[in-house]
Amino acid sequence: MKAVMYYGKEDLRIEDVEAPQVRPGSVRIKPAFNGICGSDLHLYQDGPIPPAPSTEQPHPLSGETLPVVLGHEFSGVVDEVGEGVDGISIGDSVVVEPLMVDGTCPACRKGKYNLCEQMGFVGISGGGGGLSEQIVVEQQWVHRIGDMPLDQAAMIEPLAVCVHAVEHAGATAGQTAVVGGAGPIGLLTAAVLKAKGITTIVSEVSKTRREKALSAGVADTVVDPSSEDLAAVVADLTDGAGADVAFDAAGVGVVVGQLLGVLAAGGRLEVIALHSKPVELDITDALTMQERVLSSCIGYANNHPEAIRLVQEGKIDLAPFITSKIKPEDIVEKGIKRLLDNTGEEVKILVAME
Amino acid sequence: MKAVMYYGKEDLRIEDVEAPQVRPGSVRIKPAFNGICGSDLHLYQDGPIPPAPSTEQPHPLSGETLPVVLGHEFSGVVDEVGEGVDGISIGDSVVVEPLMVDGTCPACRKGKYNLCEQMGFVGISGGGGGLSEQIVVEQQWVHRIGDMPLDQAAMIEPLAVCVHAVEHAGATAGQTAVVGGAGPIGLLTAAVLKAKGITTIVSEVSKTRREKALSAGVADTVVDPSSEDLAAVVADLTDGAGADVAFDAAGVGVVVGQLLGVLAAGGRLEVIALHSKPVELDITDALTMQERVLSSCIGYANNHPEAIRLVQEGKIDLAPFITSKIKPEDIVEKGIKRLLDNTGEEVKILVAME
Repeated sequence: MKAVMYYGKEDLRIEDVEAPQVRPGSVRIKPAFNGICGSDLHLYQDGPIPPAPSTEQPHPLSGETLPVVLGHEFSGVVDEVGEGVDGISIGDSVVVEPLMVDGTCPACRKGKYNLCEQMGFVGISGGGGGLSEQIVVEQQWVHRIGDMPLDQAAMIEPLAVCVHAVEHAGATAGQTAVVGGAGPIGLLTAAVLKAKGITTIVSEVSKTRREKALSAGVADTVVDPSSEDLAAVVADLTDGAGADVAFDAAGVGVVVGQLLGVLAAGGRLEVIALHSKPVELDITDALTMQERVLSSCIGYANNHPEAIRLVQEGKIDLAPFITSKIKPEDIVEKGIKRLLDNTGEEVKILVAME
Repeated sequence: MKAVMYYGKEDLRIEDVEAPQVRPGSVRIKPAFNGICGSDLHLYQDGPIPPAPSTEQPHPLSGETLPVVLGHEFSGVVDEVGEGVDGISIGDSVVVEPLMVDGTCPACRKGKYNLCEQMGFVGISGGGGGLSEQIVVEQQWVHRIGDMPLDQAAMIEPLAVCVHAVEHAGATAGQTAVVGGAGPIGLLTAAVLKAKGITTIVSEVSKTRREKALSAGVADTVVDPSSEDLAAVVADLTDGAGADVAFDAAGVGVVVGQLLGVLAAGGRLEVIALHSKPVELDITDALTMQERVLSSCIGYANNHPEAIRLVQEGKIDLAPFITSKIKPEDIVEKGIKRLLDNTGEEVKILVAME
């Protein structure tokens, strides 16, 4: 079968590889759409870092070295079902929670499998990927999506990240939230917040992205923190109290400071983005004096069902976030490079696998 | 009446001042014991900073400028009761929640009166203090303590800080906690943790303080982080999982890093100490990858009743933490200076007011 193989820095190749065989307890899926994720951009631009294996060092759970099939945000249709699989049938539309976990580490034992000590990602660490004609996945990671359009379904994976973040932050209906950064994760976080009845303020320097947040209906208010006083806007909208919760979907030190500064007494900043540099934090001023909480989360654990439900019930419309559909052979030029240009025009680029 | 007056940096004077008059809704208390707190040391050593007023700028709630009566950790006996006071009688042993709040700011409206925008402390900001022959306090801040010894009762105020911190951290029975720093607040936090059925590991460089934590029965294990591998000890005691929660009672940047490093997946570090310098924080490594939470709290809000109950029920014995009792006229030489020497031998020095 054809697959997009990741060989390392700036090296993706479409190759013929052996098709995976269904095993007991697993299903074979024909991927329909695969979204390009920030992690894919990092792998392309910077080369393999864990959870990707290297050419010498196999991933401990997949046992694979480079090259590996790329792609972990995907939807598809089941085309074969292994022995002992229950509740999933050929022809079902599905999405995949693209994880490999060891199941026995302290975090796994507590059900926090997203924090597994050995954590691997299908489509990064081995185990196949969404950018291929077929993939075999254990049943536990496969979620049926009913008649949800398969293109939108390819965004269930990043949506689950945001469902998890909103839950981790403890945000509840009636509160006010500020989201810093309106890339895909910021926009989807705003979508989850709005779906849960939370007043949502999106802070973003790109005009295009601010407009997207408004046109997609996921922001009540947008702010350009480079020209407006974010803290003053939030204070004004909250009768002087400040925001109950904020989400860092930017991964930039200055945004952490901005977001801590908009929080009410007892407010919480949830960092979703990865930070490549340490930040300087004045704990007493930024946290202690107003009992603020700085929290962070990653991935998802048992959040796909709610992500699917929010879309199925019409509480979140993912269509506005699909800005391009491209072919596998165009993944570098029309996908990765276009996202790395970072113009703000693209939210999610999907690779259509058929 | 005689009172210890705070005039500013290194300037305490025992003076005759006008005795306060009981107002409707307030009670007059004859202080029995007054503990010397870290804030008192800072005021003495560094001069007045808010919530202390200056000589020109009155505190917004007390309306007082320097000098002010010092002392906010005190017990005493009611000797006069104002009109309209209910449930408090002459002769009652009491402690005081030494706060002044405006009651109308966003934090106060949410019941988080410890985060009041204008926050004042009796004994720092004006409004009298425990280091005097009499003080008048509004009924809402007065807590009856039954037959609790008045010397121990003078530690209810710092104990309430620790009750609040343990509650803010969400620590629960059966968990494992690490406390960094075994000064008064660290030891009392450990006492609250133990009282709640939490396995408590105290990390402290001073041998004297480690021994106090053990002899007072508030630590299951003590660790010297300068010669032992704290993370390894904690891992060993938790079957590799790490601690559920940690408390920074040291206020030193390196301790924040140490304590984040001992936490389990999903663990929480609660900073109780004030930090005079910013810390450098690698959010991704320290928080995100294990979904750890960095939280901080200050003071107390509705925590005195539980602090009193824990002592009354015998779950916490405050006696081991009283290391000296001195006279008011010795407060500088035998109190403040001795604590500033920081030998680790003193935990709480009480000034006996009679």
